[in-house]
Amino acid sequence: MKNLTGACIFAQSGGPTSVINSSAAGVFLEALQSKNIDKVYGAVHGIKGILEENFYDIGQEDIKELELLIHTPSSALGSVRYKLKDVSVDNTDYERILQVFKKYNIRYFFYNGGNDSMDTCNKISKYIANSGWDCNVIGVPKTIDNDLMGTDHCPGYASAAKYVATTCAEIALDARVYDTGLVCVIEIMGRNAGWLTAASALAKLCGDGVDLIYLPEKPFDMDKFVDDVKAVCDKNENKCIVAVSEGIKFADGRYVSEAKTSSTDLFGHAQLGGVCNILASVIKNKLGIKTRAIEFSLMQRCAAHVASKTDIEEALQAGREAVKAAVNGQTDMMVGYTRRAGDTYKIDYELIPLATVANTEKKIPDNWITADGTYVTDEFVKYALPLIQGDSCYVTENGLPRYAKLKKVQAGKKD
Amino acid sequence: MKNLTGACIFAQSGGPTSVINSSAAGVFLEALQSKNIDKVYGAVHGIKGILEENFYDIGQEDIKELELLIHTPSSALGSVRYKLKDVSVDNTDYERILQVFKKYNIRYFFYNGGNDSMDTCNKISKYIANSGWDCNVIGVPKTIDNDLMGTDHCPGYASAAKYVATTCAEIALDARVYDTGLVCVIEIMGRNAGWLTAASALAKLCGDGVDLIYLPEKPFDMDKFVDDVKAVCDKNENKCIVAVSEGIKFADGRYVSEAKTSSTDLFGHAQLGGVCNILASVIKNKLGIKTRAIEFSLMQRCAAHVASKTDIEEALQAGREAVKAAVNGQTDMMVGYTRRAGDTYKIDYELIPLATVANTEKKIPDNWITADGTYVTDEFVKYALPLIQGDSCYVTENGLPRYAKLKKVQAGKKD
Repeated sequence: MKNLTGACIFAQSGGPTSVINSSAAGVFLEALQSKNIDKVYGAVHGIKGILEENFYDIGQEDIKELELLIHTPSSALGSVRYKLKDVSVDNTDYERILQVFKKYNIRYFFYNGGNDSMDTCNKISKYIANSGWDCNVIGVPKTIDNDLMGTDHCPGYASAAKYVATTCAEIALDARVYDTGLVCVIEIMGRNAGWLTAASALAKLCGDGVDLIYLPEKPFDMDKFVDDVKAVCDKNENKCIVAVSEGIKFADGRYVSEAKTSSTDLFGHAQLGGVCNILASVIKNKLGIKTRAIEFSLMQRCAAHVASKTDIEEALQAGREAVKAAVNGQTDMMVGYTRRAGDTYKIDYELIPLATVANTEKKIPDNWITADGTYVTDEFVKYALPLIQGDSCYVTENGLPRYAKLKKVQAGKKD
Repeated sequence: MKNLTGACIFAQSGGPTSVINSSAAGVFLEALQSKNIDKVYGAVHGIKGILEENFYDIGQEDIKELELLIHTPSSALGSVRYKLKDVSVDNTDYERILQVFKKYNIRYFFYNGGNDSMDTCNKISKYIANSGWDCNVIGVPKTIDNDLMGTDHCPGYASAAKYVATTCAEIALDARVYDTGLVCVIEIMGRNAGWLTAASALAKLCGDGVDLIYLPEKPFDMDKFVDDVKAVCDKNENKCIVAVSEGIKFADGRYVSEAKTSSTDLFGHAQLGGVCNILASVIKNKLGIKTRAIEFSLMQRCAAHVASKTDIEEALQAGREAVKAAVNGQTDMMVGYTRRAGDTYKIDYELIPLATVANTEKKIPDNWITADGTYVTDEFVKYALPLIQGDSCYVTENGLPRYAKLKKVQAGKKD
């Protein structure tokens, strides 16, 4: 545990969320007032910005604009999907990073991302530690997938869940409005974990919601799916709303999104547009009911106007906690949330070893999914509901969100 | 102009909007306190509810729940798409409606919908007037398409426009986050008029927005489209965001959504998923840039959580004005908005003959579209911006919208 003085780098990686910039704001606002940090760099496009010495000088920004970051979706610094090779295979990038850290006197490194990013963060942390260069490395979590190990939930998940729940409730009202049948199939992000799709269950708290939920945690059976939809339709005037994870797989491990259905077979080619189109076309063919395929696409991860206040505040604080921990001499850790026992929702910020988080995925517990695999239990609702509480009080201008306008002043390159 | 005493029927028709129930609330709250109206019926599924004598007794509802209707999206009474035959061809439905009106002593009839619904309303109005049965008929407008003649704009448009502008601004931040190219093609509702797609231009007021806008008012040329996207990509690191109306047509009148592209030709079949998938696949094939097709689907017309306060208040008042006009002896009219001249936005509620509105469509003026057909002018922004002002202050419960829960007490059928 070393108390260091020098510069810090913050970088963002992976798919953005509605609140990843809340964590950026937390890191920046805390770092700028820290006695141990004399320079705050923002790396452009994650790890690539470090490799290319492409930094913004965050000290040049107006505090007011940094505060507006709290409600500005997407990664303000730019993101990247760049996987570091294993150090035993090729240590070029690691050497380069170490070189840059030394050159800019980087004593604090904060990496903001999900599974892959925590893997990157973990690898860098280990390499730097072994090199003898004193630099505290702290991961700041984010992912709408909610699949990071060791933390109760992940920043970004709650806002995406609130978008999913609110939008499913709205769609449930809209899609049932006619006196004719309609099956809506809503596709929600999540390749391997169904946390976000499961949030569609919260829509029922508005009075109406989705009838069936299919998650990647359970093998998908197309015939059973058709039967499930038919059973709902038979009871409900041929109306049914289905929420489905993009990543559902058949029992043999193939993604349903890559399946050839009887419809796609006509073309000899998988349909574009993902799993919702495939399922909708199967239902139309098998049951003869009108269908609508709806993909929440980018909206589910960037709809900051319906972000959860709880999520925003926690993501902001997670950024601040990362800086506090690093300045206090912690390294090789990720900030996580621990939920206190009891009926009142309250979390504590705790540190989790990066090695625990890197490249593992937390899935929905089996007993939170109904036995027939078509819905989630009340345990899930009890878990998720506190997370979506409170509305984003974002600043508006012209009736639209007023986002942060950063100056993005390039930090001078050092010789 | 006759002052009548008796019952009223309100019915909703066509595609729902975020504020169609605001108008329902306006009609109900005004009608329930009118001395001339002794019974308020809500017809279930529009005109079909009248033909089938399927009514809710609105007087049985709690006023608090009727007030919650103001922020509840979709048609609370259920909607319908039912086109009355021309009376000269078949007057069966008209005779039936007249019979029901007499049986229930219906002296006021309010029909809430768009073009087709105003056609229905107009036909009924004329038939009833000719029959000698005294009943005042007033149309209450709604359509996200904003294409009704005689009114400055239509209830429902502004909220959908606010959704489109806000969501395009959010997507613009998200889709430009990586250091790799991406062309997003966003499909927005509007078969013949581009008002809603044009609202994507407002996203630029947030700092970033869409680069190209294609409307049904202008013939679409696929080669020019590819050139337009390429020009944006060349200037902007292969990043481009396109907003496109579902109803864009080639110069020969064919819908682009039904086109066979070089990609669909491979299958010998048009792709599912609409025009955004077709355009995205053309760009991917011709320019080799990664694409994402995004359809705003039902969300654009039911996202009440991001409704415009201006729209909500106007839609509510439009409902009230309909009742006031009818009770004052007006008939055969639709409530419309007239915008006052001057820099401060202010509207007056005026009555427009139903015959003016029925089955005509108002399109975007040619001089509000740029000469190259890829954007809208500042005149459009000046027109649309006042409409999206103010946020919906909806009631929440469990962190989610608290929608109206109507008792939906069936009115007894009369002998």
